[in-house]
Amino acid sequence: MNAPQAWFERKGLALLTDLYELTMMAGYLKEGRAEQQVTFDYFFRSLAPHGGFAVAAGLNPFLDYLEHLAFEEDDLAYLRSLRIFDEPFLDFLARFKPQCTVQAVPEGTLVFPHEPIVQISGTIFETQLVETALLNMLNYQTLIATKAARVCLAANGEPVLEFGLRRAHGPDGGLSGSRAAYIGGCTSTSNVLAGKVYGLPVSGTHAHSWVMSFPTELEAFRAFARNYPDRLVLLVDTYDTIDSGVPNAIKVFQELHEQGIMARPAIRLDSGDLAKLSKTAYKMMIDAGLENPLIVASNDLEEDLIADLKRQGAKINAWGVGTHLITSRDCPSLNGVYKLVAVRQDDKWLPRIKISSNVEKATDPGRKRLVRYEDADGRPCGDMIYLSSETPAETGLVAGRHRIHPHITVRLADARKGIELFETVFENGRRAIQAPPIQSIRAHTLEQIERLPDEFKRLRNPEVYRVLLSEGVGQLKEAMLEKPA
Amino acid sequence: MNAPQAWFERKGLALLTDLYELTMMAGYLKEGRAEQQVTFDYFFRSLAPHGGFAVAAGLNPFLDYLEHLAFEEDDLAYLRSLRIFDEPFLDFLARFKPQCTVQAVPEGTLVFPHEPIVQISGTIFETQLVETALLNMLNYQTLIATKAARVCLAANGEPVLEFGLRRAHGPDGGLSGSRAAYIGGCTSTSNVLAGKVYGLPVSGTHAHSWVMSFPTELEAFRAFARNYPDRLVLLVDTYDTIDSGVPNAIKVFQELHEQGIMARPAIRLDSGDLAKLSKTAYKMMIDAGLENPLIVASNDLEEDLIADLKRQGAKINAWGVGTHLITSRDCPSLNGVYKLVAVRQDDKWLPRIKISSNVEKATDPGRKRLVRYEDADGRPCGDMIYLSSETPAETGLVAGRHRIHPHITVRLADARKGIELFETVFENGRRAIQAPPIQSIRAHTLEQIERLPDEFKRLRNPEVYRVLLSEGVGQLKEAMLEKPA
Repeated sequence: MNAPQAWFERKGLALLTDLYELTMMAGYLKEGRAEQQVTFDYFFRSLAPHGGFAVAAGLNPFLDYLEHLAFEEDDLAYLRSLRIFDEPFLDFLARFKPQCTVQAVPEGTLVFPHEPIVQISGTIFETQLVETALLNMLNYQTLIATKAARVCLAANGEPVLEFGLRRAHGPDGGLSGSRAAYIGGCTSTSNVLAGKVYGLPVSGTHAHSWVMSFPTELEAFRAFARNYPDRLVLLVDTYDTIDSGVPNAIKVFQELHEQGIMARPAIRLDSGDLAKLSKTAYKMMIDAGLENPLIVASNDLEEDLIADLKRQGAKINAWGVGTHLITSRDCPSLNGVYKLVAVRQDDKWLPRIKISSNVEKATDPGRKRLVRYEDADGRPCGDMIYLSSETPAETGLVAGRHRIHPHITVRLADARKGIELFETVFENGRRAIQAPPIQSIRAHTLEQIERLPDEFKRLRNPEVYRVLLSEGVGQLKEAMLEKPA
Repeated sequence: MNAPQAWFERKGLALLTDLYELTMMAGYLKEGRAEQQVTFDYFFRSLAPHGGFAVAAGLNPFLDYLEHLAFEEDDLAYLRSLRIFDEPFLDFLARFKPQCTVQAVPEGTLVFPHEPIVQISGTIFETQLVETALLNMLNYQTLIATKAARVCLAANGEPVLEFGLRRAHGPDGGLSGSRAAYIGGCTSTSNVLAGKVYGLPVSGTHAHSWVMSFPTELEAFRAFARNYPDRLVLLVDTYDTIDSGVPNAIKVFQELHEQGIMARPAIRLDSGDLAKLSKTAYKMMIDAGLENPLIVASNDLEEDLIADLKRQGAKINAWGVGTHLITSRDCPSLNGVYKLVAVRQDDKWLPRIKISSNVEKATDPGRKRLVRYEDADGRPCGDMIYLSSETPAETGLVAGRHRIHPHITVRLADARKGIELFETVFENGRRAIQAPPIQSIRAHTLEQIERLPDEFKRLRNPEVYRVLLSEGVGQLKEAMLEKPA
């Protein structure tokens, strides 16, 4: 009975990695380099089209994975069967426990392109092993939390109900996606397993098939009302929304009210011209004496469509969003990467850079800390990537370097307060801080989105948030672009 | 140690469903309708843009789920905590075992819009419960198997290596996706866990970080060659592909050959102008006396880019495909749906139709069988959806009805052989036939793609494959469009 929990706790995933991580690990071991200390950064290079910010998500599931990371007998037997690896390597894996140190911005924090979100220091052996799982979990959940935040911005405070499970990428695409959508601001999920595993609110009423399985729509509605008078949302578009669905729904709510059950009149529209149908349905319900109707809309909704429905004055006050949200349909992947930024030699950390023919793709070298500056109103006005050895400026005119052209100096004029974003979240083989409840992660996100200036929250052409290099990182990058090592 | 297996075997997923399935189920139970026998069809409405066919995938994982479907104590405790459901319902769930009959086209079969791929008959209770899991598993895996088939068509017989895990939608997006990509024709996956769980071939060599962690690229290559002389593919773009990577790789392969190790010269290009770089690298390797070089390319590849690289005469002979494949980036969801098509009353099955304001969305009523017709050369020339009570035409001029306009008669002129596509795959609470090995499923796919006429396999503007309604379904639909019930 407890077995399936293992997956949800991210146990048994030691082999959730690309084969080349293992071939490199075995190579490091043979070369006597497995204990080489290194630091890797996780960051992404660009936001989804039209995006002004991202919501970091997936960290706590990754830490679950890290805490439980161990090669079991059957994993080793499988690796042995590949005839690539020798016994000393398999022995090494059998004894392996991650000892790396993970620093990261807390889950739910707003993040921006190119800044480090997670920084892992440890042996090259372990830092390499965990790359794929880290990318897998953070890329997807950050993608979906960010999409959810956009959809919620479009809904402008009205509830957004996530029901993407049927179009999600497999069972766990649904589970991880529901978790991330909640962090990004969704009110609830239809996914019952996500409700159970992650403690998310669940919602849902009935489908067309309920109506079709009764002789008439009215009988179907009455039956549902008998069973769920206090959570009644009637789906009105099985046959004809205006000629049949809405009048039948009105009749059923009136009957309930006559019985003294004061259920809020609530319907769901799942097809057709949502703007027009919602206005007509609203008027019919008001004209019939029903007060304060709830009209839930669904059917391939996304942020632009929601904004447009609002622009048309649609009488919709709750939004069911599925496919577009759970797959981030207009941009179904986040280009997060994991790059080596430093190696330890004797007592010193030597910075590393990955130069590309595309100058924008050159990485920022060195071990880092990340500072967010707020203005006098407590609103974020820019982030600075410092070397971990630097002392961040705390206030005033904060000077840094342009990230792509590090010879150029750029200033944050309004900085009143600098906040370190990294926390040490994992060390000595275990979490360094307790996993926060999911409700706190979500609250953290919502609070930050509230404080983020409007220009970064537009659905089109948002302002580009400033992420600068400190003097230290900038000088180092400038020098290393000339001479990499 | 065995715990994680539970997830891979799709155990513990009774709550992997939308809440409304459960509220409807509880409603059916209270209304005394839980035992109502019904039939649902699973089908999808359209292919991804530019698609001419789809590869059905995900059935066997769904059957695993069905075989293990049971509500455990902790599931019931969670449902109780929601305060929506009463004890008789929870008792019913505790005793629940699916008894439905599932008919389906075998996994790996080519399928087309609107035709039933899975047909489930059973009580409304159980058929409703499994809807979400069915849609989740079949929609995603069919999407990815189909994308993989397109990518493999573009690669024209050259190996396609899937390495999408880091951009997949969560751990299981990667696992299910790797499985589906293999069914669709990929040669291998980088995902070691998918290799272990599903028995897929795994592949991979090293990353940029291997090179960066050594003092020089040449030392890094030599070290990798020492360790993996017989599976050596050197990544040549860490610093400068032509000035450094390729010359160093050539040197290392020459050194191996001098030692009598006749490793095939093999490099991977992961950035830059793949057409130009591959031609230059190929010439350099040939000029250096290396024979039959293997040049693997990667970097945001998809079918159109592969086709264009081939058009330019790129000297690439293996293709690493990640993000675009594992997310089906240009179309990250398949619009598969599950619709009620019949209800049993006394001894008779009464057909049901879902009419929409959009005539294309009207469902095809009744319990069905699906027949594929082949021409004299054994090539598919059209499918016909029959009522299960009809006797399919076997050969000759096969007449049917147009699916959207069922009053119009359409004929398949070349039919020489009709093949029933449905198998009974689940009944009496267990699989009716053994799960085929994944290699057989893949072989089935490849054999059918081979036989599919070229006009359906174009990357642009493929011919539309004919899916017709039989006289029986056509007449029924025509009548029901007039008068639904």
